[in-house]
Formats: sequence, structure tokens, C-alpha cells
Amino acid sequence: MTEEEKKEGVAAVAEVSNKQVVLKAYITDGRAPRKDDMAVTVSTLPELKAPKGSGGFLVKNLYLSCDPYMRGRMRPPSPASYIPSFLPSRLCQPIEGFGVSEVVDSDNPEFQAGDFIAGMTGWEEYTLIQKPQQLRKISRNHAVPLSYHLGLLGMPGFTAYCGLYELCSPKAGEFVFVSAASGAVGQIVGQLAKLEGCRVVGSAGSATKVEMLTSKMGFDAAFNYKEEADLDAALKRYFPQGIDIYFDNVGGEMLDAALLNMRVKGRIAVCGMVSQHAVTDSGPGIRNISNVIVKRIKMQGFLQSDFLHLYPRFLDHVTAHFLAGDIVYVEDVDDGLESAPAALAGLFTGENIGKKVVRVVPPESRNSMN
Amino acid sequence: MTEEEKKEGVAAVAEVSNKQVVLKAYITDGRAPRKDDMAVTVSTLPELKAPKGSGGFLVKNLYLSCDPYMRGRMRPPSPASYIPSFLPSRLCQPIEGFGVSEVVDSDNPEFQAGDFIAGMTGWEEYTLIQKPQQLRKISRNHAVPLSYHLGLLGMPGFTAYCGLYELCSPKAGEFVFVSAASGAVGQIVGQLAKLEGCRVVGSAGSATKVEMLTSKMGFDAAFNYKEEADLDAALKRYFPQGIDIYFDNVGGEMLDAALLNMRVKGRIAVCGMVSQHAVTDSGPGIRNISNVIVKRIKMQGFLQSDFLHLYPRFLDHVTAHFLAGDIVYVEDVDDGLESAPAALAGLFTGENIGKKVVRVVPPESRNSMN
Repeated sequence: MTEEEKKEGVAAVAEVSNKQVVLKAYITDGRAPRKDDMAVTVSTLPELKAPKGSGGFLVKNLYLSCDPYMRGRMRPPSPASYIPSFLPSRLCQPIEGFGVSEVVDSDNPEFQAGDFIAGMTGWEEYTLIQKPQQLRKISRNHAVPLSYHLGLLGMPGFTAYCGLYELCSPKAGEFVFVSAASGAVGQIVGQLAKLEGCRVVGSAGSATKVEMLTSKMGFDAAFNYKEEADLDAALKRYFPQGIDIYFDNVGGEMLDAALLNMRVKGRIAVCGMVSQHAVTDSGPGIRNISNVIVKRIKMQGFLQSDFLHLYPRFLDHVTAHFLAGDIVYVEDVDDGLESAPAALAGLFTGENIGKKVVRVVPPESRNSMN
Repeated sequence: MTEEEKKEGVAAVAEVSNKQVVLKAYITDGRAPRKDDMAVTVSTLPELKAPKGSGGFLVKNLYLSCDPYMRGRMRPPSPASYIPSFLPSRLCQPIEGFGVSEVVDSDNPEFQAGDFIAGMTGWEEYTLIQKPQQLRKISRNHAVPLSYHLGLLGMPGFTAYCGLYELCSPKAGEFVFVSAASGAVGQIVGQLAKLEGCRVVGSAGSATKVEMLTSKMGFDAAFNYKEEADLDAALKRYFPQGIDIYFDNVGGEMLDAALLNMRVKGRIAVCGMVSQHAVTDSGPGIRNISNVIVKRIKMQGFLQSDFLHLYPRFLDHVTAHFLAGDIVYVEDVDDGLESAPAALAGLFTGENIGKKVVRVVPPESRNSMN
């Protein structure tokens, strides 16, 4: 207790430092986030407790998820946006994102210290969660790594599941194309489609990723889009009979080429558009849209959050296949909150190989076994 | 009987002249059809009979339909096309299209002389139909003009019905935008949507058409797209709350502007792309496709022929509303086969006001009452 506190009769508490990743300023020119758009700062918590009467609970963040949608939250607030922008750094609010966390203290009867949760949290060591968003308790199954609740069993896996099953209704024998196929979503799309008896081809941006798709994830074929001068010709080579389902994670030129190669009654699940052209609107635009009529294509955008009622079914389905060894999942893990800005920025230059995760707390520093 | 025939013992028959509209040559440069791409020629029929053993029936064509999809059949044959190209003129095959016809003679027990039919026929005075395509007998109801079986109750009406109900599921209070709204399809889309309790705005290419939409067809509002320098701004003016359903008959810049103005979970039925940019692929392409994700838009191309099982339901629905006075239909009728080439070409320059029809036989020259 300081002299000051003694004078004022304030109860003595041990302040706790809380490292945070904050957004320095909004990105206004449409470019992808860079490492130096973020900063690591240190804030403090009065104590490791959820304030009484708050109804909240305090968590220790173990893993944080780097996801492409987060770039949208780095833009200035706009009424057109489907998700609010991050708060600027002057409010000392950390970046928000999906995480796996352990409850440290709770003023909410539904959560107890020691519970593991996955859901929206802050990019910081400790977060007081007062309004749980898309948050669920994790029933610990030591056969499933905790961090997989950010990918395979988290938002990316659920995105793959909704997009493939709800929008594209895959049937055995159909031809499925997945772009950004080695990414957090793509690798699951391809493996689920294989389980349905589809022929699956993926595109990715490096030889390592391409090799991983066929050797590890069971894709029938894969190609490096950066080595293809003519994407239309590449797709014609891999899909001489055309594409029934295109799971689009990139938009831009690949979408345009896929439109030329769709079969009649083809389905396009539009999941992401991380390609530079889609992002900056500086590209030539989509020229082959008239194929939508000629081929009677259904092209549909979606957000996994529109399908949350299916989450339990998804968890059962994918967990069972994972435990049976039918599905593998590749992560790309960086250690420490300090690594988070570069980890997020690297998504947009394709540096990650598999699902990008930041491990905040090394396993050896944890109380419990994770 | 000629001297020649007498010598050969051939039975004398009265040859019948059969005026035809033929395609002179394929259109290879992607432009819209012009009047002089077609020619009116005269062929002959040996007699006004369906040959015995042919299983066919001979019809006298009364009305012919001019439809935008026909330009696709004027291109050279291509495996990518969803409908075969017309046969070139050297084969003396008339242009094919929807028509309303009267059976003159039949070798098919399902059709008798005097029957009225609507379906695929030739652009000529008489056609021998051996393989009926999308053809139905018309039960004469003198409250419904015969020619309406080419529009309101024909392929365009059915296109409107399928696109609106099957793809867009309109709900009362929703905001509906229809482009080419005074055309064969658009005017029905708008009126059906009004009957569902939607707020409906249409675009068209002249003051006359715009006036017709609000005064005659009950659209809530309409605008002349040619007088709007900024289509996005125009749509924002007419849809301050955004668009739930866009029935797209034009593609190109209007589609791009609509994408910017769709509401979350909006639906786009992609029915036609007659705009010049969509047609020649020389335009800037569709730049706002990323809205498909952000707004979770479903954008779907379709052909009415994929929904033919719904035709009886459509006929009941639309006939009942027409007879009740809930739906009006505007036609733009030209007289005589000679007028057909200009009538078809005029579709692509927006000359028609309403559904374009060619009346082959004036009512006073017909045997029966039509």
C-alpha cells in the first residue's frame, strides 16, 4: 500500500501489467495491414479479478487467431461495414479477435475459473469479457489441440462447413475447386469435399503449400497460381470437364477465370477476396460475369455468423472426422504477443503456411495442462 | 399438272409459296444483330399437308416472338453455348423462335387441324413441326389475346415468374428493383412483385417507357437510366434503404451500381445482359463484386427451361391475375414477316415499347376468329 492509498483508505491491490496489441491508426487507403500499423503497449489491470457486479469474467488469453476479415475492422468506421471498426489506439483498446482463453476469475455464474473458452477476446494477456460474442466453453479433449478451436473447430472450420454444405451441396463425383486452398478455411473445404466423394483441386501460392495439399491433405491435385501465366488455361488443364463447385477465397482474376470454367448449375461460394485486385478495386473488374446466366450459376456470399444454429452439428461432424483421422489440420504458430502484428500482416502476403495462430502463453508457463 | 409431271406420272399438287426470314451469316464480332443480317426469302411447300408417316403437323404461323436470347443463336456454333446456333441461310432454314400458330394439317394424333399452339416454330408462313419443343396447345379464352401466349403467358412471363419466385422469394415490404422494366419480362416482374406487397422501382430507356411503368403498370417509381450520369446515385435516391431484390435484365454498369446498393441478404436474379458492355466484354467489368460477401448476396443466373415443371402453376397464377385485372401487358406489334428483321434488331437499341411481336397474318385474313 502506498502512502497515498493509506491516506485515502483504499484497499491495497497488486496491479498487474497487461501487454496489448493496439491499432495505431485506421488504414484509409485500402491497402493491406502492415506490421507497423499496430503497436505493442503495456496497460495495467488493478487486479486479476472480474469486478463484482460486472457480470463479466476475466480470462487469460492463450492463443489468438489471425484472420483476413480483421483487415475490414482496421478501416475507418463506415455504415456499410458488416462488422464495427476497431477502436483507435488512443482509447487503449486492444485489437479484438478470436482467441482461446482460460477463465481466471468470474462474476458470471455460467463461467468458472479454470474453464477454457473460445470466442471473441482481446489481443492482450488478460481480457475482461462482459458481453460474450460467439463464445463457447471448450470441453477439453486432449486429442484435440486447444488452438484448433481457432481453426479446424473455430470460425474458419465453420466457414468451410457452411459454405460447402449450405451453399454448394456437394455430390459425389462433382468437381470442386478451392483457392487459397492451404489456408485456414481452404484446407478444410477440400478435405470435407473429398469425404463427400468429390474430385478436389486446390490453388495456393508456393511450392511448399502445393505439395502439402496433395501429400498431406489428400487433394487430387494442386497448382501454384503464381506460376500460371493464364489462369483460365490452368483451370482447363485441371478441370477438363469443368467445375461444379468453386469455393472462392480470393476473388479477382481467379474468380474471373473460374467463371469461364464453371459447369451448368455450378455453385460459387464467395468466402473471401484477399487478392489485391479485389481489395483495392484497382483491377480490371470481373469480366466474365455473363457466364452466370449461360451456365445458370449460383454465386453466393456468406458469413458464418448467419448459420450459428448449425455450429453444434458442425462440431460433431468435424470432430468425429478429425478423431477418426480423416481430416488433418495444419497450423502456423508464432510465439508471443509481440509476434502478432507481423503474423496478421503476413496473411496478406501469403507468408503463413496453414492457419495462422499466435501463442500468447507458452505451455510451460501455464498453470494447467494445455 | 405440268407436261413434265404428266410424263413421270406424278400426282399433281398445288405448290404453296412460303415466305421465310433467314439468317444471312453468323455474327462473329459480338455486336448486336442488325436488320440486314437477315433476309426475307420465298421457299415453297409441295402442299399444305403434313407428310403421311412423318408424325409431324403443319402449322400456319400467326404471331412470332422477338426475344433477346435469339442473338445468341446468331453466333457461330460453339460448344459453350446453351442453345444451338441457327442454321446458316444456305440451308434455307428459317430463323427459329417462339410463335403462336394454327394447325393446318396433322399426321400426329395429338394435334388436329384447327388447334392453336404456342411453342418453337419457324420465322415463316408455314412450318412443319416434327419435334415439338416447349410447345403447348392453347385453350382458347377470348379474354386473353392469342399473342399474349408469347409474352405474358409465354417464355418471358414464365421467366419473370421463375426468377422472381424461385430465385428471389419476395416478401411483403421488400424493395425490388427491375431493369429493362418495361420489356417483355420486366413489366411482369414488377407487377408480380407489387402483388406480393413489395415496393417496386423500374429503370427504362425513355420517358415514354418510364411514364408507362408508373401510370399503367403500377410501379411505385421509375427512372430513365439514360438521364442519370451516376447510376449509383440514382439508385440511392430511389432506394434510400437499399435493394432487397434486383431482377437484372441488363448486366453491365447497372449491375455494378446495384451491387453497391443491395441490402444484407439481397437476391439478384440474373436474367439478361443486353447492355452493350455485357455483350461485347469491352466494358470495365464488374468492380463491386466484393459486395456479394459483405452483404451476403445471392446472385443467380437461370433459364426458364430449367423450371418447366412449374409452367402449369405459372399459367394458373398469371392468367387468374390477368383476368382479375391485376396485371396488364403491353405489346409492341409489327405487321408482316417482312417487318421481322427490323423488329428483332430493334430490341437491342431499345426501340420496342413492351413485348415485341410480329403479326404474320392479319386477323381479317384468317379462317378462324383470333
